[in-house]
Amino acid sequence: MKLHINLGENGYDILVKRGALKKADEHMNLARRVLIVTDSGVPKEYAETLLPRCKDGVLFVLNQGEDSKCFAMLEKLLSVMLQHDFSRKDCVVAVGGGMVGDISAFAAASYMRGIDFYNVPTTLLSQVDSSIGGKCAVNLCGVKNIVGAFHQPKAVLIDPDLLKTLDKRQFACGLAEVIKMALTSEKELFELLEREELDANLDEVILRALKIKARVVDEDEKEQGVRKILNFGHTIGHGIESTTDLLHGECVALGLLPMCAPKVRERAVALLKKYDLYNLPALNWEKIQDAAFHDKKADGDTVCVTTVEEIGTYKLQSMKTIDVLKLAKDHLKG
Amino acid sequence: MKLHINLGENGYDILVKRGALKKADEHMNLARRVLIVTDSGVPKEYAETLLPRCKDGVLFVLNQGEDSKCFAMLEKLLSVMLQHDFSRKDCVVAVGGGMVGDISAFAAASYMRGIDFYNVPTTLLSQVDSSIGGKCAVNLCGVKNIVGAFHQPKAVLIDPDLLKTLDKRQFACGLAEVIKMALTSEKELFELLEREELDANLDEVILRALKIKARVVDEDEKEQGVRKILNFGHTIGHGIESTTDLLHGECVALGLLPMCAPKVRERAVALLKKYDLYNLPALNWEKIQDAAFHDKKADGDTVCVTTVEEIGTYKLQSMKTIDVLKLAKDHLKG
Repeated sequence: MKLHINLGENGYDILVKRGALKKADEHMNLARRVLIVTDSGVPKEYAETLLPRCKDGVLFVLNQGEDSKCFAMLEKLLSVMLQHDFSRKDCVVAVGGGMVGDISAFAAASYMRGIDFYNVPTTLLSQVDSSIGGKCAVNLCGVKNIVGAFHQPKAVLIDPDLLKTLDKRQFACGLAEVIKMALTSEKELFELLEREELDANLDEVILRALKIKARVVDEDEKEQGVRKILNFGHTIGHGIESTTDLLHGECVALGLLPMCAPKVRERAVALLKKYDLYNLPALNWEKIQDAAFHDKKADGDTVCVTTVEEIGTYKLQSMKTIDVLKLAKDHLKG
Repeated sequence: MKLHINLGENGYDILVKRGALKKADEHMNLARRVLIVTDSGVPKEYAETLLPRCKDGVLFVLNQGEDSKCFAMLEKLLSVMLQHDFSRKDCVVAVGGGMVGDISAFAAASYMRGIDFYNVPTTLLSQVDSSIGGKCAVNLCGVKNIVGAFHQPKAVLIDPDLLKTLDKRQFACGLAEVIKMALTSEKELFELLEREELDANLDEVILRALKIKARVVDEDEKEQGVRKILNFGHTIGHGIESTTDLLHGECVALGLLPMCAPKVRERAVALLKKYDLYNLPALNWEKIQDAAFHDKKADGDTVCVTTVEEIGTYKLQSMKTIDVLKLAKDHLKG
């Protein structure tokens, strides 16, 4: 299955295909110098599968974790390309999650003012989310993604077989983002997730989620604002993330519930339970309030939130922070 | 006088106007956070003239010299913006020569994936040359401009008054590039330089040189190759630069002479003498040969050179390295 991202000269294909990694050279031009970037948390056989398919491949393994997405490591990647005499005609391939993709794409964007970049995302989250949009970046002084560029990949290779080795919680986190997108934008996808076993439909689910993201990003270029629906569930979600040990996706899953109408919420809770995403820890609402609305006054200021009254549709609306918090308290009781 | 660089959405104006710096806020939007970048070799009153015209200006002074155009300094500039809470709506202004412009523009290109950049070039070379093209970069591991981006300025402010403080040799170096462009592309400019006093015509000379560069860069987008004429004089010039203490522009001035037909050369020598650019040092031809043609065999390989048979016209042609060297030896006798 293939999705073409229509950006004129910069357009590219996203291929969703099991076993694609083993035939990577059919989908990417690897007959040149290739810097393969991966991290220590990615099964090393993935990069090693790719390496012999490159005419002149160089492997670079980052330490797993957000700390590697830094300026010093960017300089290191660029230096490695320089040491290996990379020219404007050579390329970079990321094999990993969002962190690996972000820093590798920025290295490709800035080496000689831009060389080819391919993305082979290995987590569900990066497969459905970060491989669209062309944003790349590193962190600086503790601020995420503050330095970067827009650099479209030449192609994205999504091999759902690679998810077999993914940690279950990480897999569920990716799925939380899929559920988020289905709730605001596609009833059919939501019902597929409710009705079917995921294993048998994973490729289809990934492709549908990609299509939603592609549509939203595309619309956003014309109409500022629609992209805000990608933050559905994130206001309360961020508050929970700052005050518990839950992972980002797990918090988003919880954060979207208060923003749904009762009937939608009922189905959403059932779906989250099905995929082991409904795990309510003890919540400290005072701390959540501080983290979610830090610079806002609780009793007067408003925030823009996405709400879902019918599955597959959304409203962007302004709500008082106190009302958002009340909804969250009411619907996230342990 | 104003030159519009036509790049659609990314188009911008280059203003050539004496006293423009003192009225910078009329030509740039400084009613926001502004990072002013300059270096220790630029008279400090230039940046200080600009600073009070900014709503919220921050001054950063680099050490003079190519060593500052490095990755560590890029990170420093980005950190300063971050410390001062720069948003996507703030901007960077370069006040200096090519080095300051290159690193500042790259910082602006990558901060939050791109914020506004203004250029106030303070050397003749940067005024006529590096303010067109949108290329920005830093050096890495001793390799020049290997990491960078394309980022067009919002405007370029050329104030010829700023050249009054410029070192005479540096001024002549900028003029060497103007003469180079006139020889290949505009007889009228060449004759203006021959006939008139420069002081009285400097603004006009700058604008004409800018127009030539703009035309060449514009044509190059369609037709690979024309841009090579910007390297006129550089083959032998680089050889001389690597083996003597002369500055880049002084070497280019000498390097273009062998590539001219006899009558053209005669007038070019006279013009270089007029502007104190005809200073022939003792030349070691063996070393020049190595530096100019390092990886080429002297007796078989060819190089692409620009030659000028009539002022204002050029030919791109393939010549044996041995023939280029013979021409240089014959016409650059001390």
